This record gives sequence, structure tokens and C-alpha cells, in this order.
Amino acid sequence: MSKVLIFGHKNPDTDTITSAISYAYLKQQLGVDAEAVRLGEVNGETQYALDKFGFDAPRLIDNVAGQASEVILVDHNERQQSADGIEEVKVTEVIDHHRIANFETSDPLYYRAEPVGCTATILNKIYKENHVEIPSNIAGLMLSAIVSDTLLFKSPTCTEQDVIAGKELAEVAGVNLEEYGLAMLKAGADLSDKSLEDLLSLDAKEFSFGDVKSVVAQVNAVDVNDVLNRKDELVTLLNQNLEDRGHDLYFFVVTDILNNNSTAVVVGNAAESAAKAFGKTLVDNLVDLPGVVSRKKQIVPVLTEGL
Amino acid sequence: MSKVLIFGHKNPDTDTITSAISYAYLKQQLGVDAEAVRLGEVNGETQYALDKFGFDAPRLIDNVAGQASEVILVDHNERQQSADGIEEVKVTEVIDHHRIANFETSDPLYYRAEPVGCTATILNKIYKENHVEIPSNIAGLMLSAIVSDTLLFKSPTCTEQDVIAGKELAEVAGVNLEEYGLAMLKAGADLSDKSLEDLLSLDAKEFSFGDVKSVVAQVNAVDVNDVLNRKDELVTLLNQNLEDRGHDLYFFVVTDILNNNSTAVVVGNAAESAAKAFGKTLVDNLVDLPGVVSRKKQIVPVLTEGL
Repeated sequence: MSKVLIFGHKNPDTDTITSAISYAYLKQQLGVDAEAVRLGEVNGETQYALDKFGFDAPRLIDNVAGQASEVILVDHNERQQSADGIEEVKVTEVIDHHRIANFETSDPLYYRAEPVGCTATILNKIYKENHVEIPSNIAGLMLSAIVSDTLLFKSPTCTEQDVIAGKELAEVAGVNLEEYGLAMLKAGADLSDKSLEDLLSLDAKEFSFGDVKSVVAQVNAVDVNDVLNRKDELVTLLNQNLEDRGHDLYFFVVTDILNNNSTAVVVGNAAESAAKAFGKTLVDNLVDLPGVVSRKKQIVPVLTEGL
Repeated sequence: MSKVLIFGHKNPDTDTITSAISYAYLKQQLGVDAEAVRLGEVNGETQYALDKFGFDAPRLIDNVAGQASEVILVDHNERQQSADGIEEVKVTEVIDHHRIANFETSDPLYYRAEPVGCTATILNKIYKENHVEIPSNIAGLMLSAIVSDTLLFKSPTCTEQDVIAGKELAEVAGVNLEEYGLAMLKAGADLSDKSLEDLLSLDAKEFSFGDVKSVVAQVNAVDVNDVLNRKDELVTLLNQNLEDRGHDLYFFVVTDILNNNSTAVVVGNAAESAAKAFGKTLVDNLVDLPGVVSRKKQIVPVLTEGL
């Protein structure tokens, strides 16, 4: 029970999984009994990175209560994106690069958020501040997180700091950044053989925009038609999912990672308002979002403002 | 309007005022058009520190909306402790050492909280990370903040990091830490000539413990009888103040800075429950709190848990 568990958000992505592993390693070097765990299935992109650098996926946990008394959150802070049972444990640290919301503690803690593209970019600094060397396989994981979150430095969330950290880490990991990065992104973005149920579980996050309870999901695609050809089926599935959750909005974003555009499939009683927030009209449950690739920077703030 | 305003909490204390000044200086060195401002009157202890190191008090502002579009918070994060109009501006950074609550942003930001005794201890690190030298008069202010928040290293909130930073800063400021520290604390803790109205405005912070809207105030005293001799009058005043605010609890703590004990004067319909949270019974509106000197570490967590 004295072990500290480190984990990222539900529906884990590459930054969430690899940051848990990378920060747990750093804490262990500093003498802390830390274990990285995960809250959901590992996606294809993340599995590619884990395989490449020789890591197993962290242990899957369901409810955190009873598993530990203290936890560290990486790559998220909002309660509804975190582990079930999070209210019953003490959050001693947060390392994150998202907005802060639905987060509250009764005691002071270490909270390190920076407006950069990726948690790994912040971890890279924290390694230096603690004078701990990053092993090459951990550097490979951290690089993978940066490539994933910034879409190989093309996302508007990408900062100069992410680019510098990415290049540094590629050097330490001993890989060709462009080559490895594109291969990893493609490994996660081939959606042709994915069921719609699979797509829904890939990267869906819950948000409350005022009173509008929402899910904003995002999938990266090499070919968006792998998804959009199945739109009618998808709309039925999203509506069903919404009903089960009792929510008001499902905003499902398909991002073309080669051309950096997105299309959203939108359902729910707040769907029209959501389209309007982008200055668009909903046509057949679709909203075209040219140039949009970042949920955090180009979607969530617009919905927060508009709803 | 492009200027960034930096401020601490309402009812400012020494850490709040000096951290605003010290961080504004650092931001200016980094090319940011930053101005330190304050949300209330400067207390006697803080004035002593400002005079000693040759600073004027920052400009007083009332409502932040219309004064700036972007702000940086130091030494607090909770909305009800912050500037009026805070919802209408963008918080781009927070440097703090308190729990996180009632704080939400729509965008990612730089948030740096550490569980140390004083904001100045964190600022001391941020100066180093940015390779900016601390001028001796700014070091004097930062030292004053550490002495104030840790009661000359005697508070349980004090960490090893605060002690190290305090000693470093005393060296840079060119003052004798013990001598200057005690003189500064005494300057703020002579309550014999203070009106009760003055005492109430010294360091009162609002909190919500579940549904219990509360004020937790703290005054440092060289002689607690300067306050407790006027208890009946004080109870009347606190009750009146509660009624005006429509709150449920006024928890007024008088701390003996020479012996490191406290006595709380408690009123409101949650007063009994508040005493019970400490395992005590309320007698004549008084609760004895031996060994308690820290609102943050020894009072707020107990009330959060118990109410």
C-alpha cells in the first residue's frame, strides 16, 4: 500500500502510457516505490512504440481505490478522465499539459503543467532538473509521445520546446526522427480493419461544457474514408452510446494525418449548437474542420466558449 | 491592455505582495511587460519588509476586468481569494504552494505548484531555471516572504527547501536572517493598538468546505491576550460579518508566534461541527489548538475532512 501508482487518462494514448512509464522510472531512480499502470487498452500506435523500444504495457487497473493510497497523474487532471475511485486516494503530483478543470485537492501538491505539446517535453526537463540520465529506451518512448501528440511537429499545439526535446530524445534513442515518427503514426492510423466499436474506444474523452455533458473523441486516419464510408452506422452507434451515458453531445473527430484536416461526426441534442460554435451548420451529422488537428487547442476551447 | 498583471490573494500577506513584485521583476528581465499589483491593504509586517528593502507597495486594483486581458496569479489559485472580475481575464500562469480548488481554465497554462512553505522558495528555483540573477533588494523581499510564511522556519509547512532558500537569500540580501526575521515578525504581530476591524481585514480567506461557506482568518500575535481580552466584542463582530456574507462559519485563529500555539474564536451555525473536526467541544466560542500554527497544513485540511 505504500507504492505510488502513476497513470494517465482513460482511453490511453501514446503520451499517457509512455509518460507513466517514463516518470515511474525517474521516480524509482529518486528512491520512490513507483509503478506505472494504465486505465485502458493500449492502441496500435502505442503498441508499436512499446515493441520498438522493448517495453511491456503497464499493468491494467480498473478502480484505483484499494490499489494505493497515493497516486501521481500524468497527461490529465480532469476527474472524469481519471481512474475510477480517484476521490478515495491522495493525488500527490500532476504532470500535465492540458487545461485545468474538475480538479481539487485538500492538500498542497506538486503540480507541473506547461502549455507545451506533450507531457514528455515537461518530463525531459524534470529529468534534467533532477540530474537523472534518460536511458535510450526511455528516450525512445518519450520521443514517441512527442511525435504522437504533435503529429510529427505539425499540430498547432507543438511548441519550439517540443521540437527541441524531440530532436534531443531521437539522438539519445538512436533513431531517425522522421522515419521512425511516420512509421509509428501510420501504425496507429490504419483504420481499414478497425470495427466502429474499436474506433469509439480509441481516444474518447469526457468533458462538461457548462451543463452540456459531452464526449469528444478523436481518431487519426491515413484515409478518412475508412471511417466516413461507415458514417450511418457510426451515427447509430454514437446515439446509442450517448443514450447509455445520458449525455448531450458526441463530437467524433476524424483527423487526416497526412493532410492535417479533420471532419467531425456529431450527434446529440447539443449537436447543432456545437456546429454553430465553429460557425458551421450541421449537414447529415457532419462538420468539416479544415486545418483542425488538435482537440485541445482547436476543438475544446471552441466548444467551451460556444456552449 | 497588453500588459500582464501579477497579483496574489485578497487580504494580502507578505508572500503575496513580495512574490508579485519578485515575479514581475523576473518576467520583465525575460522581456514581458509585467506589473505587480495588489488586491488590498498592506499589513504592518509587509510594510516593514518593503521599507527595509526600499520598495513601494504595488498599485492597488479593485476589479481586474478592463485592467488587463492576461494575468498571472501568485500565492493562490482559488477563485474566491482572487481578484473580482477574474472570470473575465485569461490566467496564463500560476505560481503557488496551496491546494488546488475552485480553479478552472479553458486553455492550457503554466501552473507551478510545489508543496513547500512559501511561493518565494519556488520563485527562487524559477530564477535559476531562467538564469536570471536575483538583485539583493529582491532577495530581501523573497527572504521576508519565507520568514513570514514559515514563522522563521518553525511552522510545520516549512520544508528543507524553504530553509535552504531562506539562507541563500539572506546571504544575497546581506542581512542577518534570525535578527531581521524576528524584527519583521514582531512588526506584524504587535496587536495591542489594532482595532478589531483591522484584525478582521488582516488575513481572512474564504473557503467552501462541502456546502459550508466559511472564512478562515489568522492573525499572528506576540501577546494573544491583545485579542482574547476583547473576545465578546470580537464574537459580535464576526457574527455580523457572517450575516453580511451569508456564510456558515467564521474560524478566527490567533497564533502565538513566540510559543507556536493557537486559539480559535469560532462563530456561525457550523461552529460546533468545526470544533468537532478538531476533536474539541466549543466553549464560549473558543477552541484551543495547541501546536497549531499553519492554516494551510493544520486547519484547512481538518475542516475539509470534518465538514
